[in-house]
Amino acid sequence: MASWVPVAKDSDFTIYNLPFGVFQNKRLSPRVGMAIGDKIVDLSVLHEEGFFSELSHLPHDIFLRDALNDFIGLGKPVTRKVREIVQNLLKEENDQLREHTCRGKAMVNRNEAQMMLPVKVGDYTDFYSSMEHATNVGTMFRDPNNALLPNWKHLPVGYHGRASSIIPSGVPIYRPKGQFKDPNKEQPEFGPSRRLDFELEMAFITGGPTKMGDSISTEDAEDYIFGMVLFNDWSARDIQAWEYVPLGPFLGKSFASSISPWVVTLEALEPFRQAGPKQDPEVLPYLQCKKDHAFDIQLEVYIQPDGLKASKVCTSNFKYMYWNIAQQLAHHTVNGCNINVGDMMASGTISGPTEDSYGSMLELAWKGTKPVKLEEGGERKFIEDGDTVIMKGYAEKEGIRVGFGEVASKVLPAK
Amino acid sequence: MASWVPVAKDSDFTIYNLPFGVFQNKRLSPRVGMAIGDKIVDLSVLHEEGFFSELSHLPHDIFLRDALNDFIGLGKPVTRKVREIVQNLLKEENDQLREHTCRGKAMVNRNEAQMMLPVKVGDYTDFYSSMEHATNVGTMFRDPNNALLPNWKHLPVGYHGRASSIIPSGVPIYRPKGQFKDPNKEQPEFGPSRRLDFELEMAFITGGPTKMGDSISTEDAEDYIFGMVLFNDWSARDIQAWEYVPLGPFLGKSFASSISPWVVTLEALEPFRQAGPKQDPEVLPYLQCKKDHAFDIQLEVYIQPDGLKASKVCTSNFKYMYWNIAQQLAHHTVNGCNINVGDMMASGTISGPTEDSYGSMLELAWKGTKPVKLEEGGERKFIEDGDTVIMKGYAEKEGIRVGFGEVASKVLPAK
Repeated sequence: MASWVPVAKDSDFTIYNLPFGVFQNKRLSPRVGMAIGDKIVDLSVLHEEGFFSELSHLPHDIFLRDALNDFIGLGKPVTRKVREIVQNLLKEENDQLREHTCRGKAMVNRNEAQMMLPVKVGDYTDFYSSMEHATNVGTMFRDPNNALLPNWKHLPVGYHGRASSIIPSGVPIYRPKGQFKDPNKEQPEFGPSRRLDFELEMAFITGGPTKMGDSISTEDAEDYIFGMVLFNDWSARDIQAWEYVPLGPFLGKSFASSISPWVVTLEALEPFRQAGPKQDPEVLPYLQCKKDHAFDIQLEVYIQPDGLKASKVCTSNFKYMYWNIAQQLAHHTVNGCNINVGDMMASGTISGPTEDSYGSMLELAWKGTKPVKLEEGGERKFIEDGDTVIMKGYAEKEGIRVGFGEVASKVLPAK
Repeated sequence: MASWVPVAKDSDFTIYNLPFGVFQNKRLSPRVGMAIGDKIVDLSVLHEEGFFSELSHLPHDIFLRDALNDFIGLGKPVTRKVREIVQNLLKEENDQLREHTCRGKAMVNRNEAQMMLPVKVGDYTDFYSSMEHATNVGTMFRDPNNALLPNWKHLPVGYHGRASSIIPSGVPIYRPKGQFKDPNKEQPEFGPSRRLDFELEMAFITGGPTKMGDSISTEDAEDYIFGMVLFNDWSARDIQAWEYVPLGPFLGKSFASSISPWVVTLEALEPFRQAGPKQDPEVLPYLQCKKDHAFDIQLEVYIQPDGLKASKVCTSNFKYMYWNIAQQLAHHTVNGCNINVGDMMASGTISGPTEDSYGSMLELAWKGTKPVKLEEGGERKFIEDGDTVIMKGYAEKEGIRVGFGEVASKVLPAK
């Protein structure tokens, strides 16, 4: 399948992908678009011109919103159909849009657009679903022989995170201040975090809503998952270490989480579906799956010191996740917890089996004992002021490439 | 100060109180009102009739919303002025509203109104700020000689909670299902929770917003706190015990939290301000306070078995809190975490020093070892299907009474 829109060979935004996002530029107010090559298809223009006329109940201003929530809320049959219609219009052999007078207006340059947060996030949940990551952390901070806690293989451990501080790629963050305690000192101290870290994650965005008391089965779960983004779960390790007992991470996380702005749909990820790791012991019936829910998505993390070259510090893959997205959502709702359109559920740090596949500086530099060498800018135990952390993700198979673009955020000194 | 509206001697809704809420009834769409005696003042009517004309920038439909967020977002000088104007109008000696033709329309019967969630909750945070509660839990589950963890007296421990399942008084909840593990068994089990509990809490509702990277000092904190409600942090102890390491409470809490629908402003609570418990060791400078931020608010919990009489099982007081609301908000934002209008921050279980002042069944029945006798309906270790849990709160001093009404929710069997 080829498009009449030029798409570079290594572009994440092929005709097979067509992710949804919200953008604005100097002329245009916030609106919904789909990325292809170096262009954005302005869906509000296509709608105005009647290209979605077969979807008779599509509100006239559904694409002139500053978030995807209302669109996602129309349900999968509608959102899937919109993507299909656009995919058809972009095909090389289709000249309906290509030769249409609205073409100039409908195709916006991606490099002139400012990408916004794709959804208004209702609630944000962070899981802890990579066995390699949980094992690394357990080895470092507890007991190498019992690195995983007793519950870990029985349920996808997770916690509620802070939704207000989720920001799109490109927005810089401030180094957080907070309390931490040197184990060799009597009293805690206050100041800018000395152990600022990234966590390489992916997150899914939910449809819905469901009612309180209702649950979603693993079988139905993907009907409630619109798509996925890259997720940098910024973490201040020193703040986290001091605050987190007994109620979990709080200020060590809540200062910022950065996401990639283009939401890649599950439909686009379909060719990359595969079996996940074998789960042993067998999980309880409500967590068992009838089909595969893992996806083969290559992930990379780069650190770019201010004004210098970026160095790749991690290569991982989403397929390593022990708990899959269907299990996460089934578990999340098994107690009757209701979900809303636009909830975000992140995977937890995605570490692989090899040392270069660890998804955080904590693991890559092994608690500061093995500094990571950069091509330019020295070495790192944690993230320094002026560094930009860049995460990329893409799936590729038999000539089909579907990518996430990137999430890049620069760290500014504490305010 | 007396009102021309009849107010019973034991009414929570005196002219000194005038809490804000959102209501609807058979005739009226959702709107903002203030409670007095058995009436609700429909603020949309007063606005239409020009009673707020000195507030020239008040949007014409500000009281015809289904949540207080936009109103709170106007800022304290505006919300305070609205309350002052209404308080004046309701004074015995003032006949502006009393003799006005709109009086019949402006005064709605409270018993015919359905109260709604007062705000759309952006993010919800739960603290753990009662020393008595933290000590009781630490004694039961860890070490009686080191019941408090090392961080507890240095910072207000808290965690992010689930906002989607916060519901107003009167909405029943379903007993949650989930995983739990009997310590004497090899494998976890799945089923309806066997240890459903309440937690007696209060929560404050924030104004704002603040920007990411900014912090709120203890001195400024109350400028960002609109008011307070009663908060029942429903907890499934068996689910929580199995899931909570290492990332904190998740499904043991997220199935429901119930709140009282009337938001009592900080202005109304002013007469009940007092010093909190002395904090020793001294806290870090960013947590130090220049004035008192504790409030003397009597709290009660009742259990009412289906069709039977309610029994009081707990009498506590908000003044016991070791960490106050200004410290909680200062801590929450010290890392640069941004807040939005309508965020909700709950206190954590409010237990007092005596056995009858413990704010949860876990503590009152001491882990099931001392069942609590009810006047009707037997005894309780935890909450049973059909039980309604009722929390009440009020402050009283020198003839001034300011109350919260109640939060009451019935427990239905698991779905």
